[in-house]
Amino acid sequence: MSKIAVLITDDFEDVEYTDPANAFLEKGNELFHIGLEAGKTVKGKRQGVEVTIDQAVKEAEVTRYDALLIPGGYSPDQLRVDPDAVRFAKEFVESGKPIFAICHAPQLLITAQVIQGRRITGWKSIVQDIKNAGAEFEDREVVEDGNLISSRGPQDLPAFIEASLRHL
Amino acid sequence: MSKIAVLITDDFEDVEYTDPANAFLEKGNELFHIGLEAGKTVKGKRQGVEVTIDQAVKEAEVTRYDALLIPGGYSPDQLRVDPDAVRFAKEFVESGKPIFAICHAPQLLITAQVIQGRRITGWKSIVQDIKNAGAEFEDREVVEDGNLISSRGPQDLPAFIEASLRHL
Repeated sequence: MSKIAVLITDDFEDVEYTDPANAFLEKGNELFHIGLEAGKTVKGKRQGVEVTIDQAVKEAEVTRYDALLIPGGYSPDQLRVDPDAVRFAKEFVESGKPIFAICHAPQLLITAQVIQGRRITGWKSIVQDIKNAGAEFEDREVVEDGNLISSRGPQDLPAFIEASLRHL
Repeated sequence: MSKIAVLITDDFEDVEYTDPANAFLEKGNELFHIGLEAGKTVKGKRQGVEVTIDQAVKEAEVTRYDALLIPGGYSPDQLRVDPDAVRFAKEFVESGKPIFAICHAPQLLITAQVIQGRRITGWKSIVQDIKNAGAEFEDREVVEDGNLISSRGPQDLPAFIEASLRHL
C-alpha cells in the first residue's frame, strides 16, 4: 500500500488520470492530489473529469509520498510555470522514488532540468524538446529508466499502468 | 499590401489571432488561413473564435506569401506533430520573409530546428525549451532578430502588432 502523489491542474488528459488512478486505488493504494491551490477543483480537457486538489504544491513534501503520477494533456504546460511544482518534481526525481510520467508530463521534468542523460518517452509533439533537454527519446509504449517510468499517451495506458504497479 | 499566411489549428489563443489579424486587415493586407485541412473550421481555446482554413499546409508554398503569423495557445502543440506544418515553418524562416511568432509559437520553430543561435521570446512555460534549442531567450515584450519577430503572450500584443506592421 503506497501513498501516491498526483501532480495535476486544469486541462489534463482525462484518461491519463482516471485509468492509472483507478488501477492504483483497486490495489489498495492511496492518492493525494497536489495542485496549484488546495480545495480547488480542476477539470480534464476532454471529458471534463473533475479532481479536487488536496494540497497546494507549495506545501507538498516529497518525504510524505512513495510515488508521483504526472498525467498529460495541457496540465504540465500550466504546472511548469509554477516554481513550486517544478521544485516538487525535481525533488521527486532526485529522491529515487518512482515517477510515472505520461504524454506531456516530461515538459515539467524538462523545466526541472532532471532528464539529461535519462531514457524517456512522451507525446510526439515534445520529442524535439526531450532530445534538446539531453535525454534519450525512445518511441516505445513504456520506458523504464531507474525511477523514471514514462509512456507516450492514452494508447499506452495498459503498459504504463502495468509498469507503474510493478514499481510500487 | 502583403499576403500574410496564418498557420493555425484548434485551441489557438483567440486574441493572438484576432488582434494581429484585424490590424493587418485594417492596413489593407490579405490573410490566408493555413491549417491541417482545407475547409475545416478551427476554434480558439478561450472564446471559441472560429477560423475557416483556406488551404491545407500540405499544399502551401512559401513563395506565395510575404509573411507568416503563428498565433499561440495550444495550436502550435498540435501543428508541430504535422510534418508539413514543420516543413512550411522551416522554409518560411529560411526564406528570410518575416515570421510573427507569439506565445507558444516557438514550439513549432523548435521542432523545425530553426532557432539555434537566434534571439527570441515566448510564453513563460517554454523558456527552458527555447534555451535547450540553442536560442537566446529574452524576457521582453517584443524581440526582433532579423526576420524573426516574437512576443511572450496576450499582454504584449500592442508591441507585437506594431513591430509586425513595421516588417510588412
